[in-house]
Formats: sequence, C-alpha cells, structure tokens
Amino acid sequence: MVRKSEIRREALRLALIEAAEERIKRDGAGAIKARELAKDVGCATGAIYNVFEDLNALVMAVNGRTFLAMGRDIAESRHLAGGQSPQRVLIAMSQTYLDFAAAHTNLWRALFDLHMTVAEVPDWYQAELDKLFANISETLADLWPTRGAEEIALMTRALFSSVHGIVLLGLEQRISGVPKEMIALMIEKTLTELTGSAN
Amino acid sequence: MVRKSEIRREALRLALIEAAEERIKRDGAGAIKARELAKDVGCATGAIYNVFEDLNALVMAVNGRTFLAMGRDIAESRHLAGGQSPQRVLIAMSQTYLDFAAAHTNLWRALFDLHMTVAEVPDWYQAELDKLFANISETLADLWPTRGAEEIALMTRALFSSVHGIVLLGLEQRISGVPKEMIALMIEKTLTELTGSAN
Repeated sequence: MVRKSEIRREALRLALIEAAEERIKRDGAGAIKARELAKDVGCATGAIYNVFEDLNALVMAVNGRTFLAMGRDIAESRHLAGGQSPQRVLIAMSQTYLDFAAAHTNLWRALFDLHMTVAEVPDWYQAELDKLFANISETLADLWPTRGAEEIALMTRALFSSVHGIVLLGLEQRISGVPKEMIALMIEKTLTELTGSAN
Repeated sequence: MVRKSEIRREALRLALIEAAEERIKRDGAGAIKARELAKDVGCATGAIYNVFEDLNALVMAVNGRTFLAMGRDIAESRHLAGGQSPQRVLIAMSQTYLDFAAAHTNLWRALFDLHMTVAEVPDWYQAELDKLFANISETLADLWPTRGAEEIALMTRALFSSVHGIVLLGLEQRISGVPKEMIALMIEKTLTELTGSAN
C-alpha cells in the first residue's frame, strides 16, 4: 500500500517541476530561486530539499521533460521523412531541432546550462540522450554503410555539434536580423555538403 | 596639449581593463563586480562609470583584446598553412581556434556571453569581427571559385558556427572525457566532408 506521505511527496515533486518549468520558460534557468518556487507551490522553502537534492536536480528534472518533448518531435520528423534519402532525413531532423530551439528557447538553453561530470548524470537522463543521438547515428549508418561504428559515433557527435552551433549563434543574434529561414538555409547547405560524399 | 586629467583617465581605463581581464580569466565574465574591480585598481566604485558606460562596456573592451589576440593567432596559422590547399588552410585555422578556446576558455566564453543588438556593437568591435571572418571567407572563395559572394558569406557563417559548436560542446564536456585530440579529429573530419566537393 502506498503511504499518504509518499503521495504528498510525489505531488510536491510534480508541482515543483511544473513551477520550475514555468519560471525557466519565462526567465531562464539562471533565475531559479528556492524561495520563489516555494511561494509558487505553497510550501516551505526547506521542503524543496526533501524532494530534490538541490536546485540543480530540479532543473535536471525539467530538462528531462524537455528532452522527452524534443525527442518526440525529432523521432516524428524522422518518421515523416522516412521514405527520403538519409541526407534529407538528417536535414528534416535538424530543422526540427531548430524549430524546437526557436519555440522553446529558454527550456532548450537550460539543457546546456548545467555543468556536470559524467558521474553526476542520472541514468534516465543518459538514456534519453542516447535515444536522441541514435536517431542521428542510425541515419548516418544508412548514409555511410561501409564506415565503422566508431567513426559513425564520432560523426554523430560532430554533426550534432555543428547543427547546434548554427542554431545557437543564429538564435543568439536573432535581434541583429538573422531570420529563422537563414538559419534553416545554413543547416541545409552545411548538411548537404557534409553528407555529399557517398561512403 | 594633453591635460593631466585625460592622462589619469586613460590610465584608469587601462588598469580597469587589465583587472577585469584577470577576473574573467579566473572566474568568468559573470563574476565581474564593480566593487571588487574598484578595490583591484584602488579607485572609488563610482569612478568606474566615469570611464565606462557600464560593466558591459568594460567586458566589451576586454573582449576586444581577446579578439585581437585570437585574430593574430588565426592569421598566423593561415599564413603558415599558406602553401597548402584551401581545405587544409581551413582545418589549420579551426585547430588554432580550438587551441585558443582551450587555452583561454573563460576569455573565449566571454566573447559569446554578451547579448547585444546590432546598434550596440561598437564599430571597432565589428571591424575586428569582420577581419576574423575574412580569413574564412577568402579561403572559401579559393575553395569554391565559382560560387557567388552571398553564398560564400552564408557558408562562412555556417562553417564558423559548426566549428564553434564542436569546440563548445567538446570543451563543455571535457570533464566527461572528451580529450582535445578527439575534438580536433571531429573538426578535421567535419571540414574534410564539408569542403570535399569542388565548386
């Protein structure tokens, strides 16, 4: 039988994650403060630390939801582009990454704001990350069937980092007049060059 | 004749830039505080705002020096690789970018920490940036002689952003065991694919 205290604990956990998500959306992960979150959900400030080790762990929980949502979007765009060439599938997934980052900029930024060592990354988080990267590596394996697993892994990382860099600097300077279509064009051209050679 | 007050002003300006540079090197641009800088150089806190509009302008002045140093390194590596193919020149410049970011991580990070609109970017800053980008665009024009200026400009930006993304995520996760040689290899492979097609 689940104890009442367990149910209350789980309800508080969820309420805190939702409050933190709202605050990150609005002001970014840097603005998360225990006192304000406690006020949002109507608990004592100290009660937060009964359900999360620290605020970092709370941001991680929000990031987990963000990863899940992004992963769903990317898997869907991969599915929709399924009949096309691996090159087109990569471009479609990258455009979805851009769309997600542009639509949920602060939540997306928070994914990269935490500085953690490998030992601190929870298993469930790493599993979500691996699933996301598998979408890229499986498509690259289709594109380059003769290349080994180690090289595919290296290029998966390099390709993700490249697209991330284009999206990051593109959105960063959005005020200075880089329209989203320009970012999309840079991604398309870069990936077309990058994956132009067979094998 | 230069007035004594002008000389004092200029000396304070320089002392503040050097103090800020030291603090950014050690703790990052986010840790810059007026009170501490005033203590470093032995002036009143308010005196800072006689020579800089705000702390943002002071960080900009430090960034200007960082850009200059990075620009020198990159121009030198371009010169040294001068006899080689445009592809090799691009790889050499990118490795220098990685070396600079790895050696001066906090100063390099500060370059991207400021969020400015185009109207706020001083002319001298934009000129340094343009010089840096010219190293890439001129090499791309050698590589792709039949492509137009607009496409070269787009690919200059895309290529820089890609290399930046690889360096950023690579250094970010340095603790988690991505050695610098691995980052260098990702850059080399990415640029080799990216610039593999003639014209």
